[in-house]
Amino acid sequence: DEIRASAREMIEREIQKHAADGLGRVDYAVASGGAMVVKHSDPYRGRTSNWFLKNVRNGVHSDADKLLKPSFGEPGQCFALKGSSGFVQIRLRAAIVPEAITLEHVAKSVAFDRTSAPKDCRVSGWFQGKNPNSAINGEKMFPLAKFTYDLEKSNAQTFDVVDTTGSGLVDMIRLDFSSNHGNPSHTCIYRMRVHGHEPYSVSMMAIQS
Amino acid sequence: DEIRASAREMIEREIQKHAADGLGRVDYAVASGGAMVVKHSDPYRGRTSNWFLKNVRNGVHSDADKLLKPSFGEPGQCFALKGSSGFVQIRLRAAIVPEAITLEHVAKSVAFDRTSAPKDCRVSGWFQGKNPNSAINGEKMFPLAKFTYDLEKSNAQTFDVVDTTGSGLVDMIRLDFSSNHGNPSHTCIYRMRVHGHEPYSVSMMAIQS
Amino acid sequence: DEIRASAREMIEREIQKHAADGLGRVDYAVASGGAMVVKHSDPYRGRTSNWFLKNVRNGVHSDADKLLKPSFGEPGQCFALKGSSGFVQIRLRAAIVPEAITLEHVAKSVAFDRTSAPKDCRVSGWFQGKNPNSAINGEKMFPLAKFTYDLEKSNAQTFDVVDTTGSGLVDMIRLDFSSNHGNPSHTCIYRMRVHGHEPYSVSMMAIQS
Ligand SMILES: [K+]
Ligand SMILES: [K+]
Ligand SMILES: [K+]
Repeated sequence: DEIRASAREMIEREIQKHAADGLGRVDYAVASGGAMVVKHSDPYRGRTSNWFLKNVRNGVHSDADKLLKPSFGEPGQCFALKGSSGFVQIRLRAAIVPEAITLEHVAKSVAFDRTSAPKDCRVSGWFQGKNPNSAINGEKMFPLAKFTYDLEKSNAQTFDVVDTTGSGLVDMIRLDFSSNHGNPSHTCIYRMRVHGHEPYSVSMMAIQS
Repeated sequence: DEIRASAREMIEREIQKHAADGLGRVDYAVASGGAMVVKHSDPYRGRTSNWFLKNVRNGVHSDADKLLKPSFGEPGQCFALKGSSGFVQIRLRAAIVPEAITLEHVAKSVAFDRTSAPKDCRVSGWFQGKNPNSAINGEKMFPLAKFTYDLEKSNAQTFDVVDTTGSGLVDMIRLDFSSNHGNPSHTCIYRMRVHGHEPYSVSMMAIQS
Repeated sequence: DEIRASAREMIEREIQKHAADGLGRVDYAVASGGAMVVKHSDPYRGRTSNWFLKNVRNGVHSDADKLLKPSFGEPGQCFALKGSSGFVQIRLRAAIVPEAITLEHVAKSVAFDRTSAPKDCRVSGWFQGKNPNSAINGEKMFPLAKFTYDLEKSNAQTFDVVDTTGSGLVDMIRLDFSSNHGNPSHTCIYRMRVHGHEPYSVSMMAIQS
């Protein structure tokens, strides 16, 4: 049956996309590809006050990388920042021409509470190269995208970078959020992805693949 | 083509449900949401006899939380209890009005052997609040569900709680199984979920989302 | 609508297969089932030279088991071997009659670079039983399959074992690759599976399920 074959092909394609890290699009911020969070605003401290101190190394909390890792969609696989505004700064796997940003939150069907989702966001990028992590040169930060994460849309939302030629190559990305969806105590970032392409025809080689 | 668009929408919806922790239903027993196993019958000791001793903390084996975590469906992502009868006791993320219980086992297509699946099961719940873990007040345990896990049905089976008003709020759940599907040495619990809703309109906030 | 019901059934079946460790076929090499890598050629050293030394125990690198574990399809969940030729040796969960081998690499849509995929491969098997790991008896190694991993085909490729009666039972598998898809420095193995069946009617019991 022709419809049957066509449906089967459509199903296989959608499942393959899901099996390819959910979106089937290259992500230069994924932790397993070598990217990492290098700086962030205060983490949410949860139940114990010493939770912060023993889990921080080089100023970065051990949960920070959760926002660069996939999960089964269960609640809690996120990095919680204190308050309703804050930032995370990510060093990408490689210097790229940035094309789009994807921000994800837990799906409505399994969420206990989605008030902790970020709302008004700005993403900037710059090229840092071999400079020490702590030196952020404000003049070099280029605005890449400005968007609102909308709880009524799908849980993974992709925003194109405006003016992809303006920033040149970037290897550092910063997400600033100035509001969330109502939670006064914390904001949770489930996953942030950075899509784009490397400028060289010989793709850069890294530790794993 | 209208059929094509309709099929595509159906596929997306089913994949989204799968991507939302497999069932797309809130689970108050998921480990990443703050729930934990607090007590259980003897673990299966496997190959080495000291395996039990070095992996137990506060009376709970380090593998116990596997039954509160999702997986890719591969065999072995379970907690093995000794014998064909036993129990696990779970402290939920929050006090809820319980609505249903889901019990999962490895799928037939990838299983080496499904004789270790639990069979006749009873689930009880009660409210413990801030009382010490070890004090189980038998008078307060309410029967929530009684069921048989059926190897011929789908590998995730959901059983409604009878009389959802009877138990009041529960924050502790106990699964007792009195038989399994034939394995004399051990019974494996792959995942147990507890569905329901919190009584307050302002949902309770926890460490991560 | 009949087409709707038929489509829904097809979708559920495909998602169930995906939810059953991706392929819905028993894998005697999966790490969670008790299999393990016991020997391999030189790992790729990546950025630091002491990375090799501190991550090796009993001659096996700590990343080796990645090739016996599922993932979300994100790049990097693999074991990287030095150069464009090498081998891995796997002790299976149990002695089986081998039927097929599946080799997987990261999907094209999310890969940074697929030149590190293995190309010309040979798989051999033998029965080792309780002999010490290090003693490989060359006379006992049976050729099971010989194939080329093709970057234009789907990312999981299954190859039937020729002459399933010739090898008898095997509990040790060796993958030798003599070329990759162009990367001079390393070759990444994402996942290798070994399909077959156990000879006894009472399936063998192991630690977990
Ligand atoms: K995540
Ligand atoms: K599990
Ligand atoms: K893998």
